[in-house]
Amino acid sequence: MKRELVNYISSHMDLPEKLEKIVLDSSNIKKYKKGTLILKEDTIANESFFVLKGCLRSYLLKDGDEKTIEFYTEGQPVVPKNYGKKIPTEQYLECVEETIVNVNSPEHEAEMFQKHPEFESVCRILGEIILEKQQELFVNYKMATPEDRYTHLRNTRPDLLQRVPQYQIASYLGLTPQSLSRIRKRLVDK
Amino acid sequence: MKRELVNYISSHMDLPEKLEKIVLDSSNIKKYKKGTLILKEDTIANESFFVLKGCLRSYLLKDGDEKTIEFYTEGQPVVPKNYGKKIPTEQYLECVEETIVNVNSPEHEAEMFQKHPEFESVCRILGEIILEKQQELFVNYKMATPEDRYTHLRNTRPDLLQRVPQYQIASYLGLTPQSLSRIRKRLVDK
Repeated sequence: MKRELVNYISSHMDLPEKLEKIVLDSSNIKKYKKGTLILKEDTIANESFFVLKGCLRSYLLKDGDEKTIEFYTEGQPVVPKNYGKKIPTEQYLECVEETIVNVNSPEHEAEMFQKHPEFESVCRILGEIILEKQQELFVNYKMATPEDRYTHLRNTRPDLLQRVPQYQIASYLGLTPQSLSRIRKRLVDK
Repeated sequence: MKRELVNYISSHMDLPEKLEKIVLDSSNIKKYKKGTLILKEDTIANESFFVLKGCLRSYLLKDGDEKTIEFYTEGQPVVPKNYGKKIPTEQYLECVEETIVNVNSPEHEAEMFQKHPEFESVCRILGEIILEKQQELFVNYKMATPEDRYTHLRNTRPDLLQRVPQYQIASYLGLTPQSLSRIRKRLVDK
């Protein structure tokens, strides 16, 4: 399963065999039960993740309501807000299913950069990829009507609609569960 | 004025004097008139920017309407969508005022990394900062009501409200100009 991480990196750059071996040897795989909170508000976000199996949901609380920010499934990196900072995060990360992740930390990264400076370049390029995805998410969200957002989700990540409770999908799209139902009905009637 | 770029980098990490000098010597400063489009839809985004003076607006066209994504002012880095990719961008970058920027390109970066590998680490760290800001923008936008967004903007970037036409501010907040007027009136009346 740790090969997934190597495959992800290799899909974005030429990863020399030597570095591939280091990635495999230094992987830190953890398995969490469904419902586990692997990050909570007001704690320090000292871990980043790569989803090998399962689904993570990031959310924030606003006036007691959960506002879903993102879902992360197989093959997606997860860099929490304020990762590696001394400032507490306001983010939650919850396992929507039993989830297996590779776990990284600022300390581990620093050690890797010191021992193998070639990883500076690997992480710089991965950072650019993650930034690009984040920009795309923002632009898509901002440009779209709620109905567009739902259609886009159905076209690009149809599995999510099966894996995740409807009220979480609604919150992810910036809708009430009632509005999501209406949109789905309208699309079926078309 | 090129010192601004060094100051920005130094505010996020220890920049050795040697690298500081390289940044200053390799800067590429350009000045654009108000209204200039420095990036257009369907072209390749082969330049990234650092604003030294002035204001850039990024926007996309949707059904002929300009949808404002972001404003960048003094001290902000600008990495367009699909920067350095062979895929054409859908983004516009317009100078809201006469604007002075430092211009970077993937070719220039590659040359710098080859000559001075220490810049891999500098750019990795800057990339992390930019990612963090981007995450913050997304979360803030997604969590907030339109009125919250306006109040947040007024509190964090009051200068923008003076520098930028109202209809662009409205589009930036995801509002019609009429709704923005209503919100402003409501806040004055409170």
